[in-house]
Amino acid sequence: MLEKGPARAMQTKTVLVGSLPVGGNSPLSIQSMWKKPLSGLTEELVAEVGGLASLGCDILRFAVPDMGSAEVLGGLARRVAIPLVADIHFDHKLALRCMDFPIAKIRINPGNIGARWKVEEVVRKALDKNIPIRVGVNHGSLPKHLADEADSAAAMVKAAEEEIEVLESLGFGNIVISLKSSDTESTVAANRLFARRFAYPLHIGVTEAGPLIPGVVRSTLAFSSLLAEGIGNTLRVSLSDTSEAEVLTAREILSALGLRKKGIRLVSCPRCGRAGFDVHGFLAKTQRRLMALDKNLTVAVMGCVVNGPGEARHADLGITGAGNKAMIFRRGQMVRSLPEEEAIEFFFAELDGM
Amino acid sequence: MLEKGPARAMQTKTVLVGSLPVGGNSPLSIQSMWKKPLSGLTEELVAEVGGLASLGCDILRFAVPDMGSAEVLGGLARRVAIPLVADIHFDHKLALRCMDFPIAKIRINPGNIGARWKVEEVVRKALDKNIPIRVGVNHGSLPKHLADEADSAAAMVKAAEEEIEVLESLGFGNIVISLKSSDTESTVAANRLFARRFAYPLHIGVTEAGPLIPGVVRSTLAFSSLLAEGIGNTLRVSLSDTSEAEVLTAREILSALGLRKKGIRLVSCPRCGRAGFDVHGFLAKTQRRLMALDKNLTVAVMGCVVNGPGEARHADLGITGAGNKAMIFRRGQMVRSLPEEEAIEFFFAELDGM
Repeated sequence: MLEKGPARAMQTKTVLVGSLPVGGNSPLSIQSMWKKPLSGLTEELVAEVGGLASLGCDILRFAVPDMGSAEVLGGLARRVAIPLVADIHFDHKLALRCMDFPIAKIRINPGNIGARWKVEEVVRKALDKNIPIRVGVNHGSLPKHLADEADSAAAMVKAAEEEIEVLESLGFGNIVISLKSSDTESTVAANRLFARRFAYPLHIGVTEAGPLIPGVVRSTLAFSSLLAEGIGNTLRVSLSDTSEAEVLTAREILSALGLRKKGIRLVSCPRCGRAGFDVHGFLAKTQRRLMALDKNLTVAVMGCVVNGPGEARHADLGITGAGNKAMIFRRGQMVRSLPEEEAIEFFFAELDGM
Repeated sequence: MLEKGPARAMQTKTVLVGSLPVGGNSPLSIQSMWKKPLSGLTEELVAEVGGLASLGCDILRFAVPDMGSAEVLGGLARRVAIPLVADIHFDHKLALRCMDFPIAKIRINPGNIGARWKVEEVVRKALDKNIPIRVGVNHGSLPKHLADEADSAAAMVKAAEEEIEVLESLGFGNIVISLKSSDTESTVAANRLFARRFAYPLHIGVTEAGPLIPGVVRSTLAFSSLLAEGIGNTLRVSLSDTSEAEVLTAREILSALGLRKKGIRLVSCPRCGRAGFDVHGFLAKTQRRLMALDKNLTVAVMGCVVNGPGEARHADLGITGAGNKAMIFRRGQMVRSLPEEEAIEFFFAELDGM
């Protein structure tokens, strides 16, 4: 068993998820999970997956509940560059089939696959194809003998340890681990405890974190605690919302913690009774386009003359309302005052040149 | 000048905002700011303000850019129980007029009011009416002589100090302070520096924090750092989104930090290709109703049989999909399996009895 000293990200093993390294000194990667059934390999599916990748999704996971889904996922893996992960429960044949395709990782818990020979078949094929396995321990689905343990963090680590022992006994060490609870504190405690004892890379996340607001709050709290201690190698924000929201949240957490340099940093005002410029409307029309830009810039979108010009001046590019005009600031200089309806295109034209 | 030792919330003064104590040992209060112009005292306005209060908004602030707004706000203050704050820039007559009504606090920066005699008039009336003043220092609108200071936290504290000196020189100490930047780190640094030197209660917030996701992430990071040190007495989450979202975010941050006991804690799954039950749809229909409940319960809304029954069993009330049925769990026991379309009413009927 791989043991290590004080928890530091760089002390974990490195696992290759497709061609993407996870763990060791690799950059933190962002992942999400597909929210819909895999009903067919359509151009729309290929385009949507590409769109998520362009927003910053580094790894994308799919539930594979049946053989039809395995076929679609396999076909998709041949079409897209982003590493795809097959998430499988109960049926080892699904895992075997997925590994006939260029799948980057499988997520499977040996404990819910059943008979030892089934696990052995899966592990043998994963070894043969050099495909890593993520063992995903969730507090909501612990094995029966651990489900009622008072110390939920210890119970989760124990569950992971039992799964790891099965894999290691078969000579398999190409492992990523996750320990998730819907409770922030026990998620943090379980990952901390695990990182002290094992050197396998950690996929971190708060599971069933809730709708957008609670989910973002809980994920931010858990990730900021863990990442400050160097724990966590790949991140999944889990929201009862879109995958785009999950990816943007992870990006934002990493940016705010200074762990990600790429991408637009948006500063924008909450709007109040003073606002002349429709900040919410401008953001609704432009936010996705802004977030897909691969530039490292601060952009300010402000509503009025109280804080607007000040914030807009501190940003690389700023827009603020004044009367029925929009003023555009570029690195501290007002470059144009123009009617609101012409502002969006001028704004993006300026960004293009930066 | 009020000085104090190590920063601890309980060492601040207590200021009464209407009848709500802020600072000292008072509970942390949540505030928001109205997003629309105050164009008339309508029943709709009264109802919307009441709705925000029922979600957990303890204090509500309004921009007062003109005399018409002052009249509407004054009329509103006579109609609602929640303490209302008038936010005024530039024109001291607006502040004077607001204080003819039962306004709970005014936010005004002496520095942008102009001549000393104008500030004196405002302060005299605030003293007379026992109305506190919040001085709100924003990094985006620092006075000219401080705007280009390299140490933004020190510049913000210096700006606050200068405003406080004006008020104290007029014998006024009924003060709340805020120091906000759109940058999380300088917001934390400024509040920390201020709390070490002054005992006035702090209204904390990251200003122009952006649209929903960046705003929630940045506010969560700033508040969790400050509140862990006992800094912060009243909270404003500032989002380019609705006031409801601001209040729910503040609630969620306090709950996740164990600083707020009231209210429903929602656990819900992100949905994936396995999900039979429409978690997102169920939440869209029920989330606001759930959030307005004044009960201290954990509610789980889950999509499928992998983690669903486990999480639903750990919750006070849980709902999870299985095939085209919804199963309802009450404190670990399955109490009903019923068609999805009948689930919402049964679910709330159960909650009513808890």
